Amino acid sequence: MTTPSEASIFVIFGGTGDLSKRKLLPALCHLAVRGHLDERSRIIGLGRASQSDESFRELAHEALARGSAFEPHQIDELTSRVHYQPIGEGKSSDFHALRRRIESLSGTHGVPPNRAFYLSLPPETFPGTVAGLGEAGLNESAGWTRLVVEKPFGQDLASAQKLNLLIHRYFSEKQVYRIDHYLGKETVQNLLVFRLANGLIESAWNRERIDSVQITVAEQLGVGSRAGYYDGSGALRDMVQNHLSQLLTLVAMEVPASFDAEAIHFEKRKVLRSVAPIAHDHVVYGQYVAGAVGGESVCGYLDEKGVPEHSKTETFVALKLFVDSWRWQGVPFYLRTGKRLPKQMTQIAVRFREAPVSFFRRLGCEEDTADVLLITLQPDEGFSFYFDIKGPGEPFRLHRIPLRFRYSDQFAMVPEAYQTLIHDVLDGDQTLFVNSEEVEESWRVFMPLLDHPPPVKPYRAGSWGPPEADSFAIAETELWQQGM
Amino acid sequence: MTTPSEASIFVIFGGTGDLSKRKLLPALCHLAVRGHLDERSRIIGLGRASQSDESFRELAHEALARGSAFEPHQIDELTSRVHYQPIGEGKSSDFHALRRRIESLSGTHGVPPNRAFYLSLPPETFPGTVAGLGEAGLNESAGWTRLVVEKPFGQDLASAQKLNLLIHRYFSEKQVYRIDHYLGKETVQNLLVFRLANGLIESAWNRERIDSVQITVAEQLGVGSRAGYYDGSGALRDMVQNHLSQLLTLVAMEVPASFDAEAIHFEKRKVLRSVAPIAHDHVVYGQYVAGAVGGESVCGYLDEKGVPEHSKTETFVALKLFVDSWRWQGVPFYLRTGKRLPKQMTQIAVRFREAPVSFFRRLGCEEDTADVLLITLQPDEGFSFYFDIKGPGEPFRLHRIPLRFRYSDQFAMVPEAYQTLIHDVLDGDQTLFVNSEEVEESWRVFMPLLDHPPPVKPYRAGSWGPPEADSFAIAETELWQQGM
Repeated sequence: MTTPSEASIFVIFGGTGDLSKRKLLPALCHLAVRGHLDERSRIIGLGRASQSDESFRELAHEALARGSAFEPHQIDELTSRVHYQPIGEGKSSDFHALRRRIESLSGTHGVPPNRAFYLSLPPETFPGTVAGLGEAGLNESAGWTRLVVEKPFGQDLASAQKLNLLIHRYFSEKQVYRIDHYLGKETVQNLLVFRLANGLIESAWNRERIDSVQITVAEQLGVGSRAGYYDGSGALRDMVQNHLSQLLTLVAMEVPASFDAEAIHFEKRKVLRSVAPIAHDHVVYGQYVAGAVGGESVCGYLDEKGVPEHSKTETFVALKLFVDSWRWQGVPFYLRTGKRLPKQMTQIAVRFREAPVSFFRRLGCEEDTADVLLITLQPDEGFSFYFDIKGPGEPFRLHRIPLRFRYSDQFAMVPEAYQTLIHDVLDGDQTLFVNSEEVEESWRVFMPLLDHPPPVKPYRAGSWGPPEADSFAIAETELWQQGM
Repeated sequence: MTTPSEASIFVIFGGTGDLSKRKLLPALCHLAVRGHLDERSRIIGLGRASQSDESFRELAHEALARGSAFEPHQIDELTSRVHYQPIGEGKSSDFHALRRRIESLSGTHGVPPNRAFYLSLPPETFPGTVAGLGEAGLNESAGWTRLVVEKPFGQDLASAQKLNLLIHRYFSEKQVYRIDHYLGKETVQNLLVFRLANGLIESAWNRERIDSVQITVAEQLGVGSRAGYYDGSGALRDMVQNHLSQLLTLVAMEVPASFDAEAIHFEKRKVLRSVAPIAHDHVVYGQYVAGAVGGESVCGYLDEKGVPEHSKTETFVALKLFVDSWRWQGVPFYLRTGKRLPKQMTQIAVRFREAPVSFFRRLGCEEDTADVLLITLQPDEGFSFYFDIKGPGEPFRLHRIPLRFRYSDQFAMVPEAYQTLIHDVLDGDQTLFVNSEEVEESWRVFMPLLDHPPPVKPYRAGSWGPPEADSFAIAETELWQQGM
């Protein structure tokens, strides 16, 4: 059990939506079970349509019962704190009605004037919602007011800047929590702790010892029902500019002055500013054609429902970039992501340099490869260190073995990313969120690719992208990818 | 299956003894099963008394059947190659008779003139045996002749030098295989491979990154039936001068010019020559008094059968030494061994330096300790790396976790040390044996302690030695010793 955060009203824009049902309400319920939600705290779900608190509670009940993660009394306890408020078309009067509802619930339940507004909305409604909150005076209160913004944050640098400008008109940066749910994963948080708590790791974390870094976000799924959104976005916007870019900053950042949000944001931004312009021949775009994933035949991207006939949208990106800093100069960072790849996997691979002298190759051992640290975010959160050892007995042979750690082996309960992130919103800790400067720097890095996209090459569903991408991956990846 | 070594006659002095039955005959049988023993090869067991080949075969049969490691036909196959020859009082005529027997068996079975003589004998009979072999012309042949010498090798520097001198009168150093069975263990061989095949490890293997090294050989057993030998020897001679000293050389040696016996012996000797004189106040001797080990009450050393009433023999040694080299200057090496300790365990612990800045202590994490690499020789051969990670969820806490590898998890068959060593004798590979210079250097390191032994402090059986020894161990040892 943890100490509860200060009591507050937690408002979910898009309260009846998919994310709310699958992630946000369960995360809030987990926090309540763990004693982190003050008993006075209330949750308000918002939606366009009118419905009663009761019918929204039924929806919440169903959502919480689905995963069987909770006891019935825990579900009842949470749903009893849940309310519904229609936001209609988002007119000024709707926001004023919301304000009155918040104030009335605060009064009834003795909640201090602390409020979190979670924008789980389509991006085109962000500006209106932010302005609506601001104009209704919901951007501040006698307590704290926090704005949680879901991705995507803009479609390019200009739109991100515009959105930041609008947000900052009503909210200070200290109030804003831009979600990248990857940052809520235990392994991602641990990436920093692992580096900084362990002198051995940090001492090797540089161009002298590290040969290359590979960040992979591989999906087996195709575009599914998201073609409408996805075709206008593509893999670079959907994955690289946010998730992969964030993982890059955590891997590559300097040691911060302290372990707090401001110091860490400063260093993350510094990494992005140090990224050298990405050479056009260091980028491969791909689009999947029909193939098989996990033994099942699947159609190509152009045959997916809702995808325009001649779409040139990339469903795969592989690129090589360099961070021009004293620490990383000359070390390639390979970023890869795609849909319809052979496995569902998010992984950071750090390949160390080989030993300068290879005794064992002389002894006829061909397997003498470099050490690799694998940081797996999914499916099995954990770390593996791949080392060479001598196999027992004769003849003399090197074997690649993993020293392995899986969270699930050691810890009964690994919180879901959204649980961690909402916890931090309630506690006012911005460390695991993306600040305005980072988001703009990240767009800046990738704008040349958005302005002049490379040609899109076909790749068979179930392959690791177009063959051209093979040179933008660590060569022996397959050797250790089987391991974890 | 491996390729067989050249066919030879393998002669075991002390063929009916305990080591022969428990280790040597089983090792030979394993080698035969694995196809490493040429089918013409013969084994001759020697003993004082007369007995027939048949009765010795019965003894061998019984010894091999004991562990149920072999199929009946495998045992039959090995025992059919076994012969017996009495060596009586070891007179000249006895050695000439042995020579005739070897020649006759070679003729009958078509064995080329290759011979290994394994001296599994009490140390006082070493000189006579070596001379007997030499005088009978058994120190050389038209093929190869190898002499395998069991420990102890001398009782001090002078006696070791004398024994080397005698051996070298008849045998060149290239023919001599001094056994330290610890060197046959997979983990010990791997200690070097692990360092040298993995650039990350070797790059951290120095005073810049390593805080301290602890080598522990802990026995739960008491002196047992060996009081006659042990009381005249003590833990320094029985364990430190040989086993711990050898492990020290492997941990501390420089990268050799190549992975062969000569280059490795050169480096091992260099370590021993770099050991700074051991300060007298860096040594603690202990002798166990009554206590409990593994829940059973046991008597003190002085009450053991065969121990003289006022014996001052040490059954425990803990010491701190320094290797005065560029690599290791200032890094303490803690060597600890004893009987009647809480567990049966041989382990090398390498403690890395702590991170120069401890963010996490500031966050209230007290557990922020240094990384440790544990190399376990027994009971469970393997490696564990102890790192700090963040525990899942809140509040922010560091957890010490092991990245772990156990041989038995990955490999079905881990050969016994004697199997590895006899294999190497037959193949003529001296890498895992102790050469004459090493053995003398090692005695030289410890002679000041033998000449002026420290006072012997009592310690309770089942404890980690006298309390004075606590300062000659890595302080938080217990934290990670529970791990593997």
